[in-house]
Amino acid sequence: MKTTLGELAVRFGCELRGDPSIVVDSVGSLAHAGPNAVTFLANPKYVSQLKDTRAGAVILDAKSAAASPVPALVVANPHATYARVATLLYPEPPLHPGIHPAATVGAQAVVDPTAEIAAQASIGRNVRVGARCFIGPGCVVESDAVIGDDTRLVARVYIGRRVSLGARCIVQPGAVIGGDGFGFAPEKGTWVKVPQIGTVTVGDDVEIGANTTIDRGALGDTVIEEGVKIDNLIMIAHNCRIGAHSALAACVAIAGSSVIGKRCILGGRAGLTGHITLCDDVVVLGTSFISHSISKPGVYSSALPSEEAGVWRRIVGRIKRLDAMAKRQRALEKHVGFSATDQDSSED
Amino acid sequence: MKTTLGELAVRFGCELRGDPSIVVDSVGSLAHAGPNAVTFLANPKYVSQLKDTRAGAVILDAKSAAASPVPALVVANPHATYARVATLLYPEPPLHPGIHPAATVGAQAVVDPTAEIAAQASIGRNVRVGARCFIGPGCVVESDAVIGDDTRLVARVYIGRRVSLGARCIVQPGAVIGGDGFGFAPEKGTWVKVPQIGTVTVGDDVEIGANTTIDRGALGDTVIEEGVKIDNLIMIAHNCRIGAHSALAACVAIAGSSVIGKRCILGGRAGLTGHITLCDDVVVLGTSFISHSISKPGVYSSALPSEEAGVWRRIVGRIKRLDAMAKRQRALEKHVGFSATDQDSSED
Amino acid sequence: MKTTLGELAVRFGCELRGDPSIVVDSVGSLAHAGPNAVTFLANPKYVSQLKDTRAGAVILDAKSAAASPVPALVVANPHATYARVATLLYPEPPLHPGIHPAATVGAQAVVDPTAEIAAQASIGRNVRVGARCFIGPGCVVESDAVIGDDTRLVARVYIGRRVSLGARCIVQPGAVIGGDGFGFAPEKGTWVKVPQIGTVTVGDDVEIGANTTIDRGALGDTVIEEGVKIDNLIMIAHNCRIGAHSALAACVAIAGSSVIGKRCILGGRAGLTGHITLCDDVVVLGTSFISHSISKPGVYSSALPSEEAGVWRRIVGRIKRLDAMAKRQRALEKHVGFSATDQDSSED
Repeated sequence: MKTTLGELAVRFGCELRGDPSIVVDSVGSLAHAGPNAVTFLANPKYVSQLKDTRAGAVILDAKSAAASPVPALVVANPHATYARVATLLYPEPPLHPGIHPAATVGAQAVVDPTAEIAAQASIGRNVRVGARCFIGPGCVVESDAVIGDDTRLVARVYIGRRVSLGARCIVQPGAVIGGDGFGFAPEKGTWVKVPQIGTVTVGDDVEIGANTTIDRGALGDTVIEEGVKIDNLIMIAHNCRIGAHSALAACVAIAGSSVIGKRCILGGRAGLTGHITLCDDVVVLGTSFISHSISKPGVYSSALPSEEAGVWRRIVGRIKRLDAMAKRQRALEKHVGFSATDQDSSED
Repeated sequence: MKTTLGELAVRFGCELRGDPSIVVDSVGSLAHAGPNAVTFLANPKYVSQLKDTRAGAVILDAKSAAASPVPALVVANPHATYARVATLLYPEPPLHPGIHPAATVGAQAVVDPTAEIAAQASIGRNVRVGARCFIGPGCVVESDAVIGDDTRLVARVYIGRRVSLGARCIVQPGAVIGGDGFGFAPEKGTWVKVPQIGTVTVGDDVEIGANTTIDRGALGDTVIEEGVKIDNLIMIAHNCRIGAHSALAACVAIAGSSVIGKRCILGGRAGLTGHITLCDDVVVLGTSFISHSISKPGVYSSALPSEEAGVWRRIVGRIKRLDAMAKRQRALEKHVGFSATDQDSSED
Repeated sequence: MKTTLGELAVRFGCELRGDPSIVVDSVGSLAHAGPNAVTFLANPKYVSQLKDTRAGAVILDAKSAAASPVPALVVANPHATYARVATLLYPEPPLHPGIHPAATVGAQAVVDPTAEIAAQASIGRNVRVGARCFIGPGCVVESDAVIGDDTRLVARVYIGRRVSLGARCIVQPGAVIGGDGFGFAPEKGTWVKVPQIGTVTVGDDVEIGANTTIDRGALGDTVIEEGVKIDNLIMIAHNCRIGAHSALAACVAIAGSSVIGKRCILGGRAGLTGHITLCDDVVVLGTSFISHSISKPGVYSSALPSEEAGVWRRIVGRIKRLDAMAKRQRALEKHVGFSATDQDSSED
């Protein structure tokens, strides 16, 4: 799509420093954007890269604007504005409303006439598909599910029975929303399946990544609140609740019945045990394991960065003998008549 | 479905304390079950919650029964009995035997007339589908696979060539059973693919979670014994064997040729290296990494719980300098003429 | 397939010690191969197992050849030669060129007449499918994608818009190549989606495992170079580059914009943070977490092997109090007038 800097400035509330009639049709990085492309500077620490850009315009904040050698779109939040400009310039392919002849739609399903159901999709009984939805190729939407307006199931998505998705959601390929939770009652060394009666409720403006799985509740629902962003290969177990506008990076796993507050950020491969609660505004660094509830906003970690393997092996040996080492320390203290005063002393 | 407390008591061998003619049609939690719902008390530590329940009946054990303010179904294993009651009250949708016109079935495939093949499913040559099976929408079953009676492939499941599944299995959406194992021979800085000649054999009463992958064997088969329960996003590599009635929580990963005993429990994200053996009745706590065989039943762990990030960073610094710290301890011991006697002393 | 030892020796450049007319039709392990099967000895440490083999022939190197009680195919790299022999004896099922009537092919798509498009596959507009490709059942190939000659998408694979795959690639079921990267700009406690304009470029001879996800680039492409082998359930985020002939074991996760060198090996569940670089020939052991760039070839680890849970709990307690322990050590040193000289002393 083509537009002008003047149109971008008006549409996205930027101050334009430069010629409003300049035409742009694409976006690019500071280093690679050409004269028809818009770029952006979100992090002032890269301001030195500005001087070499050949972009048609740079989106940046007022502090950095003076350093731009090319037209500037000045705005408080350059990254968010860049996102909107890129969305304008790279629209999703237009919908082809209607049901592809190679799709299957069950009885009593109600598909809005402005929605598109692509080839090889399977829509169950009594499903409701909202306005301007895209149900991509190979998707399976089971009976009684509800898909909100403008929601996009990219391809090969599974939506279980009675699952509801809000408006403007995007679900990437391979995601499974509403598979059975993992519930079994032990009995004489075997397991009896506990039916998973609940479902999954997903709010508006949620994005769910490729091959992520969100299980239906055992009793009551698994809930993803509005604005949550969920990356790929994530596991959200039955009866979890993810608070509004939280973001979960790839490979996060959350065990059953845990509750995540609003605006939390879970780094890649963070893991949470079941039945715990994180308050609002908690950040968990990648690879960390949370085994207890957190009631204080902040940043939490248990990530162990790698070492050269020989060095690491020696460290592991030391870790495994830490108890002995602490006892030697205590014996040494006694030997020299030294009395430790920290909280450790009562625990040896 | 509707039934009476009397019928439940007879069918599931409970002692009924209350009116056998009371009608129930659903299940619910202690807190939320209404007068038409059955609830249960599996863990005596929640017995204090009993007094507020408004359920139609509570399934519980003899010790807790006196505390119930509502009719009681008394039984030795309330959780397992609850599971069976819920299964009765929430039956799977009835099968529609036959092959959907939008499914594809290969030559010489034998589909039992009581089985259902749903829309967009693809059944390969010479596949055998047992009685009362459900092959859900979008499933792919490759040639020469065998699906046992009453097995349910929910949707978008992949079953590879010659894979066999037992009776009464449930496979959740997106699971891949029988993809190629990861086998390559190094040659001059590149890799030569080693054909994966084996297959996967799955016993009766196995459940396999969403987007889990179980690879076919390189030579010989990957084996999942009867009654094993496997959660979502789990990786079981080629030539593993999972012993009967073991349970694997989400995101477990097991490298090639490892053998898990019977009745083992692997917590979420537990990881096992290849070519090791766990004996029967091993429990691995979530997030733990098993690098050696285990020959003694018990509970094993290497999980590291998180701290506030600043505190954790300081701990990591200490861990990385543990070797130096141990050497200082030893030097100090020498300095003061103290002789440590533990097993550490020989290793410094 | 049947062949003779003589034919194998000629075709794969082996020295044959034995009767060239012996017919073989299969492969097997040292222990289980029968008289019609070929086996191999790749690791000289198993040479003692040779004496009991009943195989038709053993592929091994010159050093071990004398110990073989059966005909020997002597070659420098027995494992690679075994891989080629097995590939010969177990060919993929023959292609059935053409487009299955239950597949869907978009306008302007160009499918080579020697390629096979299986049932329930969906091929988008303007896709190009090369010679002798196999697009398996349930695959979705979006518009403008390019599939190189002899590439095999096993089943239910997703290939996003404009993604290109090289020749002779194999993609296992459920893999998602070209889903959106995880890019959002924060704005007033919510997230604005950043369009993912780039795509994924996959070189020749790449294998990609089941349910693995490789995201398209935000700006510029995610790149998988030739000969890379990627196992199951792996996450490769937007704008990563994986160097030629690297091998990634199952459940590896790599955050955005990281660059892996050539011939690297990442063990199972290794994790890499974003925006880092590994030089060529780096090995990361399983379960390890790499948080910084690595510029020196070698082996790296942060894996923590499990202990019995009670022992481990005690160790964790010690780890959490390491800071206090170090301070006690320092106080003790001062108390006895001992001066440590290592690099630790400046950091307390």
